[in-house]
Amino acid sequence: MSEMNGAKSLLATLVGAGVEVCFTNPGTSEMHFVAALDEEDGMRAVLGLFEGVVTGAADGYGRMAGKPACTLLHLGPGLANGLANLHNARRARTPIVNVVGEHATYHRALDAPLTSNIEGFAAPVSGWIRVSESAGSVAADAAEAVQAACAPPGQIATLILPADTAWNPADGAVDPLPLQAPETASAQQIDSVVAALKSGEPCAMLMNGDAVTEQSLLLAGKLAKFCGVQLIGDTFISRISRGAGRVNVERLPYFAEQAEEALAGLRHLILVGTKAPVSFFAYPGKASELTPEGCSIHSLSAPGQNAHAALEAVVEACGATGLAAELANLNRPALPTGELNPTSIAQALSALMPEQAILVNEAATSGFALPGMTANGPQHDWLDLTGGAIGMGLPAATGAAIACPDRRVVALQGDGSAMYTVQALWTMARENLDVTTIIFNNRKYAILQVEFMRVGAHNPGPKAMSMLDLSKPDLDWISLAKGMGVPALRPTDAESFSKALAESFATPGPFLIEAVI
Amino acid sequence: MSEMNGAKSLLATLVGAGVEVCFTNPGTSEMHFVAALDEEDGMRAVLGLFEGVVTGAADGYGRMAGKPACTLLHLGPGLANGLANLHNARRARTPIVNVVGEHATYHRALDAPLTSNIEGFAAPVSGWIRVSESAGSVAADAAEAVQAACAPPGQIATLILPADTAWNPADGAVDPLPLQAPETASAQQIDSVVAALKSGEPCAMLMNGDAVTEQSLLLAGKLAKFCGVQLIGDTFISRISRGAGRVNVERLPYFAEQAEEALAGLRHLILVGTKAPVSFFAYPGKASELTPEGCSIHSLSAPGQNAHAALEAVVEACGATGLAAELANLNRPALPTGELNPTSIAQALSALMPEQAILVNEAATSGFALPGMTANGPQHDWLDLTGGAIGMGLPAATGAAIACPDRRVVALQGDGSAMYTVQALWTMARENLDVTTIIFNNRKYAILQVEFMRVGAHNPGPKAMSMLDLSKPDLDWISLAKGMGVPALRPTDAESFSKALAESFATPGPFLIEAVI
Repeated sequence: MSEMNGAKSLLATLVGAGVEVCFTNPGTSEMHFVAALDEEDGMRAVLGLFEGVVTGAADGYGRMAGKPACTLLHLGPGLANGLANLHNARRARTPIVNVVGEHATYHRALDAPLTSNIEGFAAPVSGWIRVSESAGSVAADAAEAVQAACAPPGQIATLILPADTAWNPADGAVDPLPLQAPETASAQQIDSVVAALKSGEPCAMLMNGDAVTEQSLLLAGKLAKFCGVQLIGDTFISRISRGAGRVNVERLPYFAEQAEEALAGLRHLILVGTKAPVSFFAYPGKASELTPEGCSIHSLSAPGQNAHAALEAVVEACGATGLAAELANLNRPALPTGELNPTSIAQALSALMPEQAILVNEAATSGFALPGMTANGPQHDWLDLTGGAIGMGLPAATGAAIACPDRRVVALQGDGSAMYTVQALWTMARENLDVTTIIFNNRKYAILQVEFMRVGAHNPGPKAMSMLDLSKPDLDWISLAKGMGVPALRPTDAESFSKALAESFATPGPFLIEAVI
Repeated sequence: MSEMNGAKSLLATLVGAGVEVCFTNPGTSEMHFVAALDEEDGMRAVLGLFEGVVTGAADGYGRMAGKPACTLLHLGPGLANGLANLHNARRARTPIVNVVGEHATYHRALDAPLTSNIEGFAAPVSGWIRVSESAGSVAADAAEAVQAACAPPGQIATLILPADTAWNPADGAVDPLPLQAPETASAQQIDSVVAALKSGEPCAMLMNGDAVTEQSLLLAGKLAKFCGVQLIGDTFISRISRGAGRVNVERLPYFAEQAEEALAGLRHLILVGTKAPVSFFAYPGKASELTPEGCSIHSLSAPGQNAHAALEAVVEACGATGLAAELANLNRPALPTGELNPTSIAQALSALMPEQAILVNEAATSGFALPGMTANGPQHDWLDLTGGAIGMGLPAATGAAIACPDRRVVALQGDGSAMYTVQALWTMARENLDVTTIIFNNRKYAILQVEFMRVGAHNPGPKAMSMLDLSKPDLDWISLAKGMGVPALRPTDAESFSKALAESFATPGPFLIEAVI
C-alpha cells in the first residue's frame, strides 16, 4: 500500500465499521477518495450519473441492509442534487454516511465558482454534520459518522471532507465506535397501552419503523387476537414485511377524509415506531390533525425506541404470549386476462412474483390495487416513498438490489416520478442488477389532477391542465430504457404483460416494462 | 375573473412587473398558483419534468432576456432539486424570482412528510428570501421580489408561499417597485485605471458581466488600441457577445498553470465586472490565487457597478474616443472532411451557424476548439457554465430559446453533464424550441481523468477509473432523445455531421446530434 493519507484512512475506517458500499458521483475534489478505492477491497463503488440516484440508492440500500452505505458527493451542488432523496431517507430514518467533498481548507475563502455553503445545504436533512479540518482527524470523524448514522432509529450523518484533508498524510484507520442501543419503552408507556388494550374500548395501533418487521408484527397480531386492536400501518412505511405467513396490516389512507374515516370511533390510538397522524397536505377548511376527538394517544414506542421489546412487554402483560396471530395464507390470484390496467398489473404481479421479492412502491395513484393484491402473495418486503419527494423509486430499487443480490427487486413506478431520477436505469444496467421496473404510464401527474380539485382550485383551464399533463410529447419508455442499456417491452394487454413479467423474473439483470394505462 | 386570492394577486403583480414566463414543476401546495395561470394571459407557463430543468431554464432565460422569469417549485424537495442550477445562476448573477410553495401556515408545525426547512435550503443561493405570511401580503412581497431579483448585478429572490396565502382572499395586484440603477465607478477607480493604462507597463483587463456586451467590448477595444492593454474574459462568462464585427477577447484558461502563464509578467490587472482570478480547484502544492506577484489589481467596476459607464469614462480620460477598436472579421471555415472529432465539430459549427445564434457551452474538455473556431463566425451570444454545477446546458438552452424565439440555440454539451438534466429534451419537444443539441459523447468524465492526475492521485486502479467512465453500458443518445420526442441523428464522419447540422438549422424545432468522439 502506498503512503497513508486522509482519504485512505477514511475508507479503511468505514470498511472497518462495516460500511461496504459507496454510492458516488465524484468530482475533482474527491479524486483522492476515488483513488483510495483500489486499495480497499472491502468497499464496493457504484457510480450514479446524477446525485439523486446516489442518495436514493443509499436510502434503498440502508433500508434493506439495516446498516449504512456511504455516499461520495461533489461539493455543495453535488450534495444539492442529492438532497431530495436524502429528505426521503431522513423520513425513512435510514442510516447513511453522507460524505461530501469540499475545496481544500485554504481554498474555501477564495469563493471559487463551485464554492457554496455546504453545511447550509446539509443541515435540513442531517442529524449529524462534521467538517474534517485536518487529515489527522478524518479517520476519527468517519468513525463518529458511522456511529451517528446508526444512532437509533437511524439518520443521515454528513461528513464534509476538504480536499487537503484527503490528500495530506494521515495515521491510518481508527477502530469502530460502539453502536448505541435503542431505548426501551418505560413501564409507564407499557402500562398505559396495556390499560387501553384491556379497556374494551375501540383501539388501534399505528405502526412504522421496527414495529413492522416480521417479528414485531407477529406480536402485534397476538394483541389483535387478544382484544381486537386494529393494526394500521402508516400511509408511507420505510420497510414492511408482508405476504404469506405474516401478519397483514391495513394502511392509513392517503386522503385525509378517508384517513379520518379509518380512525373514526377510536378511543385509543397506540403509536408504535411512529408519530400521531397528520394529513399529507393541508386543504382549505379541513383539519390537518387526523386523530379523532375524544381519542387518547398512547406512544408505546417512539421512533428510535425498541418497538419489538415494547410489544413483547405488552404481549406478556396481557397474557397473550400463547395466542396465535392471524397470518396471511398464500393465495396467488389467477393470471389476469384482457385489459392492461392498474388492477390487472397488480394481479399479474401477485400471481408471478418470486419468493422474497422487494417491492419498491412509487406508483402513486396507479398503485391502488397493489397492497390488496399482494397481501396474500409470497413473502416480500415493501418500501414506500416516505418523504413525498418523488424520484425515490428507481434509485431505491437500485440500492436495494445491491443490498440483496439474491432477491428480485420490483420497482413499481409512476411515469412522472420515474423521470426525476431516470438515470438510475443506467446504474441498474452497469451493475447488472435484478430489478424489474414497471412503469405505470398514465401520461399525467394524475395525483395532481385529483389534488387540483381537492384544494378547491376550481375551473381548471388549459394552461393549468397542461402543467399536470405528460403527453405532448408522450414519453417513450422503451427508448429511454434502451438509451441506458436496459431491455424493455411495452405489452398492450394483461396476457402479454404477464408474459413479459415472467420473462423478467426468469432472467438475471434489469428489465423495464412500460404499461400504458 | 373569479374571486381574487393570494395566488392571483401574485401572478398579476409579477406580470405587471414584466415577468412573463413561469418555469415550473408544481405540486399540490402550488395548485392555486397553477389555477391562476389561466386568468393571466401575460404569463407563459413552461413545464419541466425535473426541477433542475426549471431553474436552469430560468437561468438561461434571465441571461438572454435581461429580466427575470419566475419559477414555481414544490416545497423544500422541489427547491432542493433546483438548487444546483440556482447555484450556477447565482454565479452568473442572473435575476430570478424563485417561487417556492410551502405547506399552509398552520400545517407547517405538524411535520408532515414533505415538511422541511425551505429557508435553510434556499439561503445558500438566494440574495433575498421572504416567506409570505398572509394572502394580503403576497402581492407586495412579489413586487419586492422582482425588485430584489433585478438589483444590480442580478440575484435570486426566493419567495416562499404557504398554500393558504395562495388560496385565501386578497386585494389584488400592486404596482411594480422602481428598479435600482447600478452604481457608477468612483473617480478614484477611474483615475487608478487610467494611470495604469498610461503607465506603459504590461496591463490586462479581466472582464465578465456587463463588461462583455457588444458595446462595452467596443470601448475595451478602443483601450486596447490606445495602449495595448490585453483583453481577457473570465474562464466562465454568464453571456458574451462574439463574432464578426465585434471585439474578440481571449479567455483565462481553466487550468491554473495555464492561467498563471497567461497572466505572467503583468504589472496591472484591471477588473471589469469581475473579481480577482482564483483557480477553479486547489491542487497540492500549487497557488490558488492567480494574480502574479508584483501585479497591482485595479477594480474598475465590481459586479453590480456600471461597467459600460466606467469604460466610457476611462476611454474619454485616455482620449481614446476616436480610436477604432479591432473587430473580428467574418471568416467562416470550409466544411470539414474526414474524422468526426472536437475540431471538425467546431469547424462545421462555425461554417454553418446562423446569424445571432446562441451558443450554450457545457462541452467541458470536448469544447477546446469551439472558442477559436467561432471567433470569426457570424454574430452570436455565448453562455458558459458559471458555477461549475454540471447539468446547466440543456436547461439553459431551453430557457434561452424561450427568451429569444427568433434565434437558433445550440447546446454544446458533454455527455456526462447532459445526463444530469436530460429531462430538458422533453421540454424542448413540448415547446417546439429551436434548439440544436450537440452531444460530445466521449463516454467518460474526461475532465476527471485529467484532474485525477493533476491532483496527484497516482496509480489509477480499475475501481477508480470505473468511476470516471461512462461506458458499460454506452449511453445511446438517439434513443434517449427519441424517448423524449426529440429527433436525433448519430453521424459518423465530419461530412454527415455537417449535413445533420445544416438540416437542424434549416428545420424549426429541436434536434439532437450525437457525436461519438
